[in-house]
Amino acid sequence: MSYTQTKSKHLLGLKSLSAEEIDSILTRAAYWEHHPVKVSNMLHDRFVANMFFENSTRTRFSFEVAEKRLGAQVLNFTAASSSVEKGESIYDTVRTLESMGIDAGIIRLKPVGVLAEIAEKVQFALINAGDGNNEHPTQALLDMYTMKKHFGTLKGLTVSIIGDVAHSRVARSNLWGLQKLGANVQFCAPPSMQAAELSEHAPYVSMDQALQADVVMMLRVQLERHDGQGVLGSAEGYRAQYGMTAERMENMPSHSIIMHPAPVNRNVEMDDEIVEHPRSKIFTQIGHGVPIRMTVIERALS
Amino acid sequence: MSYTQTKSKHLLGLKSLSAEEIDSILTRAAYWEHHPVKVSNMLHDRFVANMFFENSTRTRFSFEVAEKRLGAQVLNFTAASSSVEKGESIYDTVRTLESMGIDAGIIRLKPVGVLAEIAEKVQFALINAGDGNNEHPTQALLDMYTMKKHFGTLKGLTVSIIGDVAHSRVARSNLWGLQKLGANVQFCAPPSMQAAELSEHAPYVSMDQALQADVVMMLRVQLERHDGQGVLGSAEGYRAQYGMTAERMENMPSHSIIMHPAPVNRNVEMDDEIVEHPRSKIFTQIGHGVPIRMTVIERALS
Amino acid sequence: MSYTQTKSKHLLGLKSLSAEEIDSILTRAAYWEHHPVKVSNMLHDRFVANMFFENSTRTRFSFEVAEKRLGAQVLNFTAASSSVEKGESIYDTVRTLESMGIDAGIIRLKPVGVLAEIAEKVQFALINAGDGNNEHPTQALLDMYTMKKHFGTLKGLTVSIIGDVAHSRVARSNLWGLQKLGANVQFCAPPSMQAAELSEHAPYVSMDQALQADVVMMLRVQLERHDGQGVLGSAEGYRAQYGMTAERMENMPSHSIIMHPAPVNRNVEMDDEIVEHPRSKIFTQIGHGVPIRMTVIERALS
Repeated sequence: MSYTQTKSKHLLGLKSLSAEEIDSILTRAAYWEHHPVKVSNMLHDRFVANMFFENSTRTRFSFEVAEKRLGAQVLNFTAASSSVEKGESIYDTVRTLESMGIDAGIIRLKPVGVLAEIAEKVQFALINAGDGNNEHPTQALLDMYTMKKHFGTLKGLTVSIIGDVAHSRVARSNLWGLQKLGANVQFCAPPSMQAAELSEHAPYVSMDQALQADVVMMLRVQLERHDGQGVLGSAEGYRAQYGMTAERMENMPSHSIIMHPAPVNRNVEMDDEIVEHPRSKIFTQIGHGVPIRMTVIERALS
Repeated sequence: MSYTQTKSKHLLGLKSLSAEEIDSILTRAAYWEHHPVKVSNMLHDRFVANMFFENSTRTRFSFEVAEKRLGAQVLNFTAASSSVEKGESIYDTVRTLESMGIDAGIIRLKPVGVLAEIAEKVQFALINAGDGNNEHPTQALLDMYTMKKHFGTLKGLTVSIIGDVAHSRVARSNLWGLQKLGANVQFCAPPSMQAAELSEHAPYVSMDQALQADVVMMLRVQLERHDGQGVLGSAEGYRAQYGMTAERMENMPSHSIIMHPAPVNRNVEMDDEIVEHPRSKIFTQIGHGVPIRMTVIERALS
Repeated sequence: MSYTQTKSKHLLGLKSLSAEEIDSILTRAAYWEHHPVKVSNMLHDRFVANMFFENSTRTRFSFEVAEKRLGAQVLNFTAASSSVEKGESIYDTVRTLESMGIDAGIIRLKPVGVLAEIAEKVQFALINAGDGNNEHPTQALLDMYTMKKHFGTLKGLTVSIIGDVAHSRVARSNLWGLQKLGANVQFCAPPSMQAAELSEHAPYVSMDQALQADVVMMLRVQLERHDGQGVLGSAEGYRAQYGMTAERMENMPSHSIIMHPAPVNRNVEMDDEIVEHPRSKIFTQIGHGVPIRMTVIERALS
C-alpha cells in the first residue's frame, strides 16, 4: 500500500476533503443509518483507540457506539482533566498505542497544529474528533447529513451559524463542508466572538438577518471565556442579544430548522422550551452521529 | 408494543413492584446463578449504558459483569466526581444516549425524584442503581435472594436493619421488598439517623432487640455526615453503640446471619474479624448481585 | 485442582520464578508475536479485571490489548488518583471482584508486601503489573524478550541499568530475571538513588563504565522526588551527569542498544533525538509488551 493511500485514510478536517469525498460519506451514512444489523462482525479483528486528550463524554460515546456496531475492539484513553497535555506527550502516547497495534485512532486534543504533525508520522488511520478551534469534521458531517436528509439537498441552502465563532471548530468544519456542497454560510457573532480570518469566507450578519435562513445553527457559548465583556459575560445578557428564544423562532421562516451541536446551555444560547421543539433537530443530529462515524471508521479501515 | 408494556420494563424501585414480580425475579436469578454458560450471546446486538452520575465502582462492576455475561454491548458513563449533576443535565445526558440507540440504561444519581421524571420521557428501559436515599432495588433483590437461599423462604423472617436509616436507599428498598414477601422488618438507629416517614411502616427497636432476629443487616455509615453529633460522630463512638462486634454477634440467635451492602467501614459499623466470619454473608451477597442483575437486565430487554 | 497448582498461576515477580519458567514465557511470546490471528476466541468466557490502584495508562492499555486479542471479557478498575489506597481497602476491592466471578486479575498498587498477602487469600490468578518499588515482572519480561530477540541469547550479555534504582521495580525485576538467564547486570546511580540492599547482587559502576555494555537501560526519573539534592534535582543537572545524550551514545560500543521502560522524560534521562534513534528500542519494547502479556495471561488461565 503506497504512502499516499495510507495517508488518505486519515480524516483530519473537511477543508482538505473534496466535495466528492464528502458526498460519498453522506451517501454511505444513509446505508448505515438504515442497516438492519445493529452489531456486525466487520471489524472484529481491528483495534480502535479513542484518544481523548480533551474530555468529551458525548462525542466519545458516539464514536464508541459506532465502533461497537462495526464489531471493533475498543480502547478508551482519557487524559486526566487536570493534566495539561503538550504536543510532545500527546505524540508519545499516540506512538505508544501505535506500537501496541491499534488500527485506527479517534483523537481529540487542544493544541492546534499538533494533529497534522502526528498524522505525518503514524501509519494507522487518524480521525479528528476535535482539535482546538480548528476542525471537528464528524460533527459537521452529521450536521450536513441532518440538513441533507431534511431538505433533500445542501445546494442553495442558507445556513446561519450563530455565537462564539472565534472559538468554534464546529463553525469552521461546517463552513468548509457546506460551501463545498453548495450551501451559503453566514455567521452572526458579537465582535469579541468573531474570527477575523473567516470573514473572507463568509459574511457576518445581524441577528435579524441570521434568522432569515433555512438552517439556524446555534453554537455552545462558554461564558467563562467572556468575563469582563459586559452584558455578554452573563447568561441573561447573552440570551437577550444572541439566544434562540421562542420570539426569535417565530421570526424564522416557517420551513426553517434549528440546530445545535449539544450539549445546550439551556436558557443561554437556546431557551429551554426550544430544545425539544419539533423545529429543533438537536437529538436527531445526535442520532445521526452514529452512522456518520460508522462510515468514517469504515473508510479509515478499508 | 404498547406504551404500558414499554414502561413496565423499567425497574425504578421495589415499592411499585408486586410480590409476584419480585418473586419471579428471585426465581429466575437462581437459573442464572447456576447457568453453565458463563458468557452467552443473548444480548449481542443490544447496548446497555451504565450511567453513574454518582460514583460506585462496586455496583457498576456488578452490572458490567452481568451485562457481559449476557453478551451485551456495554457503555460506561461516569460523571466526574467533582461536578454536581443537576436533574436537567442528567436528563440531557440520558436523552443523548437514547438518541445514540441504547436499549437499556442502568442509572445512579443523587437527586430524588428525577428518575421518575426521566422514566416517563424515555423509550428505553431504565434500571435504578441507586437514587439518592430513595431506592436501590437491585441491592435489595440480591439481599432478599441471599436470605431466601439461606432460609428457604422470606415468609416470617425477622430482619433488623441497623444504622443510618435516614440516608439509606438500601434500607428503604429492603423494607418495601421484604414486607411484600412476608418478612418482618424492624429498624435500629440513633434518633439523628431515623427516617420519620418510615416509622409507620416498621418499628424502631433497641440494639439489644435488633440482635434478636434471623437477619441482622448493618448499613454503611458515613461519619462525615454526623460531625458535631457527639460520640456518634466518631468511629469509636459509633462502634460502641451500633457496631457489630464479636460480643454482640455472640448475643444473636445461633441460626441468624449478618449482612452488609458493602463496602464495610471496618471497625466502625462492623468489626474487622466479622467481615469474613462464616456468619457474615457479605461476599456471598456480592456474588448474588451478578445473577440478580442478569435477571433484571434480561427482564428489561425481553 | 490442587492448591499448589492454583497458586502457581500467579505471576507476582521474577525473583520467585525459575529460569525454565522465564524461558518458556519468552519462547511462547514469540508464538503470539507472530500469530496471524489478531483477535481469537480463546478466553471468550473468562473475565479479566485490570485493577489499577496506581494509575498507568500505558501498562493498562498493553494488558487490555493482550486480553482482547485473547478474546477475554475485560473489566477496568482505576482508583481515583486522589484517594490513597490502603492494603485493607485494596483487599476488599479484590475480594469483591473475586466474588463477582473474575478469573484473573492484573494488579498495580503502591504498598509493598500487600500483593503477597492478597495472593495467599484469593483463588483466581493474580498478575503483578507493578507493586511499589518491588517488582514489575511483565516489564522485565518484555525487556528480556527484546534483548533476546536482538542478540539471540541473554547468556553473557552485559546490561547496565542507569538511574533511580532505589525507587525502580523495573530495575529489580530485570535484575532477578536477567541473572537467572545468564546475563551480567550492573547499576549506575548517584548515591541518593542507589538501593543498598541490591549491592550484594550487582555492582554499582561509573557512568563511563556503564556505557560499555551490550544493553544500556535508562530508568525514568521523577525529579520531584529529589528536591533539595543539588544538581540532581534539576532536569539539566540530572541530564549532565546521568542522561543519555548523543555524545554518550557515541561512546557506547557500536553493537549496543538503548532501552527505556517509557514514558521518557525527554531531555532529562534521554535526549529528544535519541528516543526514536535506530539504536533505541523504546517503541519496539512497547510492541513486545502485548505478546508477553498474552503469554502471561494465557499461562494464568490455562
